[in-house]
Amino acid sequence: MKHLPDRLLDGYHAFMGGRYASESDRYRALAKEGQEPQTMVIACCDSRAAPETIFDCGPGELFVMRNVANLVPPYEPDGRHHATSAALEYAVQSLKVKHIVVLGHGRCGGIGAALNPAAEPLAPGDFIGQWMGLVSPAADAVSGNTMMTSGERQTALERISIRFSIGNLRTFPYIAEREQNGGLSLHGAWFDISTGELWAMNHDTGDFERPDVD
Amino acid sequence: MKHLPDRLLDGYHAFMGGRYASESDRYRALAKEGQEPQTMVIACCDSRAAPETIFDCGPGELFVMRNVANLVPPYEPDGRHHATSAALEYAVQSLKVKHIVVLGHGRCGGIGAALNPAAEPLAPGDFIGQWMGLVSPAADAVSGNTMMTSGERQTALERISIRFSIGNLRTFPYIAEREQNGGLSLHGAWFDISTGELWAMNHDTGDFERPDVD
Amino acid sequence: MKHLPDRLLDGYHAFMGGRYASESDRYRALAKEGQEPQTMVIACCDSRAAPETIFDCGPGELFVMRNVANLVPPYEPDGRHHATSAALEYAVQSLKVKHIVVLGHGRCGGIGAALNPAAEPLAPGDFIGQWMGLVSPAADAVSGNTMMTSGERQTALERISIRFSIGNLRTFPYIAEREQNGGLSLHGAWFDISTGELWAMNHDTGDFERPDVD
Amino acid sequence: MKHLPDRLLDGYHAFMGGRYASESDRYRALAKEGQEPQTMVIACCDSRAAPETIFDCGPGELFVMRNVANLVPPYEPDGRHHATSAALEYAVQSLKVKHIVVLGHGRCGGIGAALNPAAEPLAPGDFIGQWMGLVSPAADAVSGNTMMTSGERQTALERISIRFSIGNLRTFPYIAEREQNGGLSLHGAWFDISTGELWAMNHDTGDFERPDVD
Repeated sequence: MKHLPDRLLDGYHAFMGGRYASESDRYRALAKEGQEPQTMVIACCDSRAAPETIFDCGPGELFVMRNVANLVPPYEPDGRHHATSAALEYAVQSLKVKHIVVLGHGRCGGIGAALNPAAEPLAPGDFIGQWMGLVSPAADAVSGNTMMTSGERQTALERISIRFSIGNLRTFPYIAEREQNGGLSLHGAWFDISTGELWAMNHDTGDFERPDVD
Repeated sequence: MKHLPDRLLDGYHAFMGGRYASESDRYRALAKEGQEPQTMVIACCDSRAAPETIFDCGPGELFVMRNVANLVPPYEPDGRHHATSAALEYAVQSLKVKHIVVLGHGRCGGIGAALNPAAEPLAPGDFIGQWMGLVSPAADAVSGNTMMTSGERQTALERISIRFSIGNLRTFPYIAEREQNGGLSLHGAWFDISTGELWAMNHDTGDFERPDVD
Repeated sequence: MKHLPDRLLDGYHAFMGGRYASESDRYRALAKEGQEPQTMVIACCDSRAAPETIFDCGPGELFVMRNVANLVPPYEPDGRHHATSAALEYAVQSLKVKHIVVLGHGRCGGIGAALNPAAEPLAPGDFIGQWMGLVSPAADAVSGNTMMTSGERQTALERISIRFSIGNLRTFPYIAEREQNGGLSLHGAWFDISTGELWAMNHDTGDFERPDVD
Repeated sequence: MKHLPDRLLDGYHAFMGGRYASESDRYRALAKEGQEPQTMVIACCDSRAAPETIFDCGPGELFVMRNVANLVPPYEPDGRHHATSAALEYAVQSLKVKHIVVLGHGRCGGIGAALNPAAEPLAPGDFIGQWMGLVSPAADAVSGNTMMTSGERQTALERISIRFSIGNLRTFPYIAEREQNGGLSLHGAWFDISTGELWAMNHDTGDFERPDVD
């Protein structure tokens, strides 16, 4: 058996012959001097919504946490393992990023699962059910509106979840503090896979708007 | 205040004029038909190690979980929120990926923190300390070996951690089962930021080897 | 006092010197032969959403009913005066239009009034309250979701109302019959005043989509 | 099936490439600041008599109610749905328009139906018969005058109806009050489809006169 899937080996060789070949100095400098990304992105695992692709960013630019449905749980310092909170702590306290962007997207499978819970969990541990339970109050409120189409409910919860995650970011004391003193900005964005449109959350109203229409 | 950082807006416009313009059919099909990635990658948040870049992959190819130091915790069905376990459950049970790749990299800040615990945590909740605690037995063993250089200890723990995460993947019953019946392969890889070299874990020995030197 | 507002007299003279001058043959033919519009549009009174402007249509093309919030009440043959039902009857039974389009738009004042009923009606008769009462069940359902922003609730009800009106069109026996035998199509559309975008209702799902992205 | 008729999609694209392209700032301002039309027009649904065309008005200028034969029913606060009264209430009480124009036109199908009632209604509910019943006393009086030609009777009733609607406007207490204190003017106009001539109602005599012949 090959030690890596063929597609990945092929892709790696394309990277070495292309991007790395033309950016090797940048990689070497980034290795030597360490990373200093200005922006952390909290994105979904979805294969269609990679932040480096959508924002056309190169090595060193984005510190990226990805989980199902780009959720931020509330601050919960209980001595347990918290993947998302650990990434936030590292980005804000060690790397001192200036921006955190919660990047959601259309047709999100996690959000779909929250809106249409299966009769049976995907597996006995029901990790997806537990994880998406973070937004179950919002999912219930949206699901109850049967006058909206299924697609409209999906988009609504995707956007509510982004605002919810931004709200949870502010429950971390050091994030709230740095936001207040101007050292850190929190942003929301929603990517439409089909059209490629990016919608940015208006900081004042919470609405999602096309940035080129500001 | 702008609703998104300037760099990201500029990058997005480059994406729309470039990649999206030339791949819009693919995006539309992926939106309509849903994602069917063959591979899940568990990668680090590090801004220098984006898997889509290293493997030169486009939309729809990689389902990507990213956390600090690309760690997989052991199977722990306790009814709590587990970001990483939820992503695994979704990838394996819903998307039925055929490969899971744990992708580590050199100069990993999380691994460095595990080897050189600060006198004080980054923040009172110490989420990084708790998270990296997953590999603290290995970190202690490596730290104790003062005949290895600091750089060697770092690389050693980076690679031990990848094998540790692959071991934890097998504590998930459905992953173990699908690996045994041949439907799923587990892989490790380690990326050298400075040289761009990719080292693949040998399935039999656990050693990391240059794939083009096989 | 002038017998017509100055602005309208000026505009009329521009029309006579411009459009009428170049289309007088068409006007004369339309006068002589009568109108044969293919399409009826049910639109809002809003000054920013004239269907002839949005669809760039000339004389003879669109038979246009306009009321507050482009609502169609249900079929109610009670021997009273029904402005909207009379227009429908004339368009379908006498003019035999082939399409009926319910055209809604963003920032609709009527929809806003339904979502945020004033403490006091606009006037003792409360005609707006009574009229918008047609969609009050939907307005209540949408208003209850406080996790959506005010702007999102507004858009949601605007789109629900269009589907509601299309549903009511089908309560008219002759409309249902002609739709079934293929002689008449019912459509929904929503116009974004700010961006100029037109969203068409998908006949199958009820979702609103950009027509150029089909 | 297309989600909108081809003619409308083509027209919309012409609008976006033409009028919207050159007036996008105006649309954005109108979206942001809301509409403040000075004038409400009560017009007929007829495809040949769009007020924006006849008065060459752009977005934001005219608040337009359209029904069959541009009729205003009398004030009837009975707790039922009244499309026309709701539009009046909104225009006068909320938008505070300064002018209301009742715009009739030649060869009006609704007026023709009032003068020549069919042996059978257009449809069982007879909404057209009920609606045009608003002017049936006038229609009966005109019909009885067999010394006028058919064309003269049609024009006569079209103009009588405009005065009748203006009279009904004054049965709305807030319209009468605002007209008396000078905040609101009521106007009548009649458009000749064939010649393009506009005739304005003389406020003092009720006669219809060519404004450019004053």
